[in-house]
Amino acid sequence: MAGSNFGTIFKITTWGESHGKGIGVVIDGCPAGLPLTEADIQPYLDRRRPGQNRYTTKRMEADAVEILSGTFENRTTGTPISLLVRNTDQRSRDYSTIAELYRPGHADYPYAQKYGVRDYRGGGRSSGRETIGRVAAGAVAAKLLAQLGITFTTYVSAIGPVRIDRNQCDFSRITESSLLMPDAEAEQRALAWLEQCLRDQNSSGGVVECIIRHVPAGLGEPVFEKLDANLARAIMSVGAVKAVEIGDGTDAASRRGSENNDYYHTDADGIPHKQTNHSGGILGGISDGTDIVVRASFKPTPSIGQPQPMLTRDGSVTTEAIHGRHDPIVVTRAAVVVEAMAALTLADHLLLNMTARMDNLKLLYAKE
Amino acid sequence: MAGSNFGTIFKITTWGESHGKGIGVVIDGCPAGLPLTEADIQPYLDRRRPGQNRYTTKRMEADAVEILSGTFENRTTGTPISLLVRNTDQRSRDYSTIAELYRPGHADYPYAQKYGVRDYRGGGRSSGRETIGRVAAGAVAAKLLAQLGITFTTYVSAIGPVRIDRNQCDFSRITESSLLMPDAEAEQRALAWLEQCLRDQNSSGGVVECIIRHVPAGLGEPVFEKLDANLARAIMSVGAVKAVEIGDGTDAASRRGSENNDYYHTDADGIPHKQTNHSGGILGGISDGTDIVVRASFKPTPSIGQPQPMLTRDGSVTTEAIHGRHDPIVVTRAAVVVEAMAALTLADHLLLNMTARMDNLKLLYAKE
Amino acid sequence: MAGSNFGTIFKITTWGESHGKGIGVVIDGCPAGLPLTEADIQPYLDRRRPGQNRYTTKRMEADAVEILSGTFENRTTGTPISLLVRNTDQRSRDYSTIAELYRPGHADYPYAQKYGVRDYRGGGRSSGRETIGRVAAGAVAAKLLAQLGITFTTYVSAIGPVRIDRNQCDFSRITESSLLMPDAEAEQRALAWLEQCLRDQNSSGGVVECIIRHVPAGLGEPVFEKLDANLARAIMSVGAVKAVEIGDGTDAASRRGSENNDYYHTDADGIPHKQTNHSGGILGGISDGTDIVVRASFKPTPSIGQPQPMLTRDGSVTTEAIHGRHDPIVVTRAAVVVEAMAALTLADHLLLNMTARMDNLKLLYAKE
Amino acid sequence: MAGSNFGTIFKITTWGESHGKGIGVVIDGCPAGLPLTEADIQPYLDRRRPGQNRYTTKRMEADAVEILSGTFENRTTGTPISLLVRNTDQRSRDYSTIAELYRPGHADYPYAQKYGVRDYRGGGRSSGRETIGRVAAGAVAAKLLAQLGITFTTYVSAIGPVRIDRNQCDFSRITESSLLMPDAEAEQRALAWLEQCLRDQNSSGGVVECIIRHVPAGLGEPVFEKLDANLARAIMSVGAVKAVEIGDGTDAASRRGSENNDYYHTDADGIPHKQTNHSGGILGGISDGTDIVVRASFKPTPSIGQPQPMLTRDGSVTTEAIHGRHDPIVVTRAAVVVEAMAALTLADHLLLNMTARMDNLKLLYAKE
Repeated sequence: MAGSNFGTIFKITTWGESHGKGIGVVIDGCPAGLPLTEADIQPYLDRRRPGQNRYTTKRMEADAVEILSGTFENRTTGTPISLLVRNTDQRSRDYSTIAELYRPGHADYPYAQKYGVRDYRGGGRSSGRETIGRVAAGAVAAKLLAQLGITFTTYVSAIGPVRIDRNQCDFSRITESSLLMPDAEAEQRALAWLEQCLRDQNSSGGVVECIIRHVPAGLGEPVFEKLDANLARAIMSVGAVKAVEIGDGTDAASRRGSENNDYYHTDADGIPHKQTNHSGGILGGISDGTDIVVRASFKPTPSIGQPQPMLTRDGSVTTEAIHGRHDPIVVTRAAVVVEAMAALTLADHLLLNMTARMDNLKLLYAKE
Repeated sequence: MAGSNFGTIFKITTWGESHGKGIGVVIDGCPAGLPLTEADIQPYLDRRRPGQNRYTTKRMEADAVEILSGTFENRTTGTPISLLVRNTDQRSRDYSTIAELYRPGHADYPYAQKYGVRDYRGGGRSSGRETIGRVAAGAVAAKLLAQLGITFTTYVSAIGPVRIDRNQCDFSRITESSLLMPDAEAEQRALAWLEQCLRDQNSSGGVVECIIRHVPAGLGEPVFEKLDANLARAIMSVGAVKAVEIGDGTDAASRRGSENNDYYHTDADGIPHKQTNHSGGILGGISDGTDIVVRASFKPTPSIGQPQPMLTRDGSVTTEAIHGRHDPIVVTRAAVVVEAMAALTLADHLLLNMTARMDNLKLLYAKE
Repeated sequence: MAGSNFGTIFKITTWGESHGKGIGVVIDGCPAGLPLTEADIQPYLDRRRPGQNRYTTKRMEADAVEILSGTFENRTTGTPISLLVRNTDQRSRDYSTIAELYRPGHADYPYAQKYGVRDYRGGGRSSGRETIGRVAAGAVAAKLLAQLGITFTTYVSAIGPVRIDRNQCDFSRITESSLLMPDAEAEQRALAWLEQCLRDQNSSGGVVECIIRHVPAGLGEPVFEKLDANLARAIMSVGAVKAVEIGDGTDAASRRGSENNDYYHTDADGIPHKQTNHSGGILGGISDGTDIVVRASFKPTPSIGQPQPMLTRDGSVTTEAIHGRHDPIVVTRAAVVVEAMAALTLADHLLLNMTARMDNLKLLYAKE
Repeated sequence: MAGSNFGTIFKITTWGESHGKGIGVVIDGCPAGLPLTEADIQPYLDRRRPGQNRYTTKRMEADAVEILSGTFENRTTGTPISLLVRNTDQRSRDYSTIAELYRPGHADYPYAQKYGVRDYRGGGRSSGRETIGRVAAGAVAAKLLAQLGITFTTYVSAIGPVRIDRNQCDFSRITESSLLMPDAEAEQRALAWLEQCLRDQNSSGGVVECIIRHVPAGLGEPVFEKLDANLARAIMSVGAVKAVEIGDGTDAASRRGSENNDYYHTDADGIPHKQTNHSGGILGGISDGTDIVVRASFKPTPSIGQPQPMLTRDGSVTTEAIHGRHDPIVVTRAAVVVEAMAALTLADHLLLNMTARMDNLKLLYAKE
């Protein structure tokens, strides 16, 4: 079945395997007239590239993106935008031994059960490299959103047992932090934790949080295409994500109504403002005009250097060590993937919401 | 935009407002030959009806379902199954004062911003009554799944600060528990907590957990229609849900790889089994043949008896108490909604997965 | 599979069988703020009702429509609009003998092959009665389009061998013509032809043509959701339609380019106008701002009074006469169905096209 | 909006402009285990290449296809299949003068109205070159269908006023006929007609007919995804098509029921067979197990060498001759495009139909 599409109006289709010829995405439904060149997209891909710190895989790919269609004179034309990133550093020999093995925590076994055949080189389609298509498309969505003033702040809020303290966060330091943490003190502890993981040939889970600002009220379509529902799907579809939370998330379950409701008060100018944002900017599945807050919990990458029990294709269990290049921590590279998926979701909902009222129809068609 | 559909093959469309003429759902794509009568559906609706304990709304509706189409001689025919539940106890006068008010924690404000107009009677389409369509359709999905041996165990795992102890759960007691809790001791503490909430005219959040057993390996479509992604969307789309977790969920983020990987061992018969199920039965977005575990955190219902600050349509803030019939705790009624959404997701993926292999095509078309 | 939906934004789901409890449709994605009551819909249903002339079935149903949801104070709210028409005159005894027979020209045999089971009473879901859902929804689409000035002229252009002469058409006479023909002279000949068909216990094919006026340029989405492609699908999906043509249709195939191109000339005011409209208002799948012309060829209804060879369920061939109530001519009742499908297609494309340009986004979101 | 997708399960997304970097298609949902290499696809692309006779454009492109993803060891893996054809012979200078002109019969004007901006080089996305993506994907669909014995016979049945005589057709001569006509005598007359068109710097319309054999009964999903409805959409979406007919098509409208019904008779072996196939293999929108017949009428290509009146961007009318490379007749190259669209439609319906019965679910899941 066709599972490689995301979105209704701003719709993407991704393709590509870890060790195939390349990875790509087709963006269909991007409005005409958006300024766009490769220079808008490349910085997003660079954010997900390995090698930014010593806790990410040693695989080096330029991941240079090429726009194959959909723009003319550096503007979108309304036709599909095809983006291509060629694979260059594939070293498929590293993976030959795993053809017969189903690695723990990986998709090897389910893929084999589902399709009968699988491209075992580097995880094939289930590789993290698949996210290149998401990120490239997300960069275009983010460019669109930026035209309307919508911005993203994305960071790592936890690594293993280390969590940031929300009272001592400085969001301006995210870009300079090798771990994308806004809390310098937490970052130091996280670095120590990761050193230990490296020494143990182990890996660590973590949490990515994304704040989306300046979103107009009204985005989200009741009842199955709610904004939070689609953010949840978008982000849970990223490999290794095991939980998605909106606003206060799981914490809301232990609270009482009077503690969890966000109350309005009127400020000095007589303008009403929410005093709190427990809801994370979404009520009834529709944006309420305040900051949207979404959070993703990533499991530790299952590929670790230690020897581990593995299932074999013939049904026996053997103990092997996995070779190859893997990240002991994925959240630093995954942050831009979460942001990309959020941007894609927002862009689609922004377009969908244009059709919500007769007023809008009259406004647009009357101008002609 | 059209947000009232769910599913690709087994596809539902729900409709109806709290105080309109009724609530309904059309199920399209249900295979022909499934035995089906109202008696298969009514028990699910009864599970979400109010009045089961003193912590749920006093509104009394029979919620009797009528099958309007799609069956012949008590079997599905492959044509759309239309299900109707008439509203009978509407008392819309209770809600007249809120026409000018945007209640905190409710969808009133976003609906007004989105559509310009809203049916304010009882929350209209954003009312919990909307879930009748989901539950009725979910009953049909569950019937289909049961033909293949797939079953559901759904319960309340937390209410406010009270959490069940997984070591002392007896799942056989769920149906007799007024709070649907498998841990008798936790239930006692939860009852005490709810008594206090009632006295304080307050409400409480909680957690629903659903275990799906006997799911074949291979369900889920990479990369955007992963089984966990679609479960997340399905369940986050239920009103008041603020987090969705798969397997160990948020806990996975604080672990190391060696602790989180599920290892196989070979049992006495030489058959390999997973020793743990941290992954919740899904790897790479595809079912691995073990139990699927999904968990939803519900915020406390925002309607509480206490006077609260409210935003008015003209932009001022006023303090009012909300009258009407509301649940101090939603999880006991929401459990069947979570189960219904999980059943709908599974049924759709079961059908989608039939097309994954050429072998399957040859098998089915060769028989003719 | 789910085949009962039509549309992407303005999306309908129909349900119901000829001899079930009723026929209905859910319209999802209709913009909020459209004035709507049953009085807007009933006249369309009345146009497809039998009994308007002696060449249509004697089955008498009031076909009274009820709006079950989606409006508040006589305006749409943006939530799904559920419309219900109860079946009242079902006389299923008439059809009992056909349980074992596959009627020639009917869907009996394919349905049985596809589903293994079928509701044989009156054709079940393959009955012309299924079109009630289309027409009810089409009335809402037409109401929406009328707000922007878009109008429909739908008529019968041929019955059997009788064709209208385009040079002597008076479109104002359509509503008074029992055969919906704009050419009085052709109508006389068609009446004579139908008398002969009745005497012979036979039926006749015919052609419905629909002109859509005041459509803005720009509707249609390249390359698979072209306006003409979606009109073709919409109208070919109506039972008994065997051909769909746009503009000059099949005639274009025998022409040369210089004869088929529509040339612009400048009128006295200096405004350019097309001199001809061979293209039927659509170029490259996108509306060009001139009248859209679409045409559907209907086969003669296969139910005729004469004894005919029929296939039986056990694979033998027998000769039987079909009893029951059938139309010797369907085009007079089908005209409003064609119009409804065209209206649904146009409404959806009108909404889709709102998202085509960045300018439109800025215009709509800037106002907030 | 996203109009570049076709199909529900076997789903394609095409991209690319005439004078961009290339043309491509992503096929998502192709079952795993289908043998596939470039050698399966290239012959289809060669059939649509220009230069096969003197009546097609002189533009010469190798149109060599590259499989970028989705196969492993020459079999499909169930992951998206990305196909790329690089543009090599673009000569965009030929088109520079039309930047300010809207050519008659072309999509120039609607594109400009819709998007505000357009890639005018060679028609951009509205160029016939867009069909490369359709044909490449159609080749994969045809390969899948061939595994189940389904085959296509596609030919030109009319060119301008010349029509084939169905009584003197020899389908074995199609591949050797430069005009793809099965009637040698008609071909001679068509060649003479085309000579005259060339001399007059004119072009000609024509008709393509496609017969699909060995299709199992049961394909097609009531009521909006009927097989004929989806064939109509698929084929009407091809540029220059103005009519789509199923079986006897427009001729059915002038007939009586007794003439148009296909009657079964029992042959010597006691097996029932249809004596005629007026219905073109589809009844009630579902395949009936006999040959499917579909026909497309193409308008004459609007690009002709003669000077013609053209609309300018500033709203005036001027007379110009269009330079560049254009086909005086498109049907010879378009035949494979019609076949490709039919193959894509059939492949999708073949997969969709697998889910029609509970029996099928039990059969497939029981085997595991």
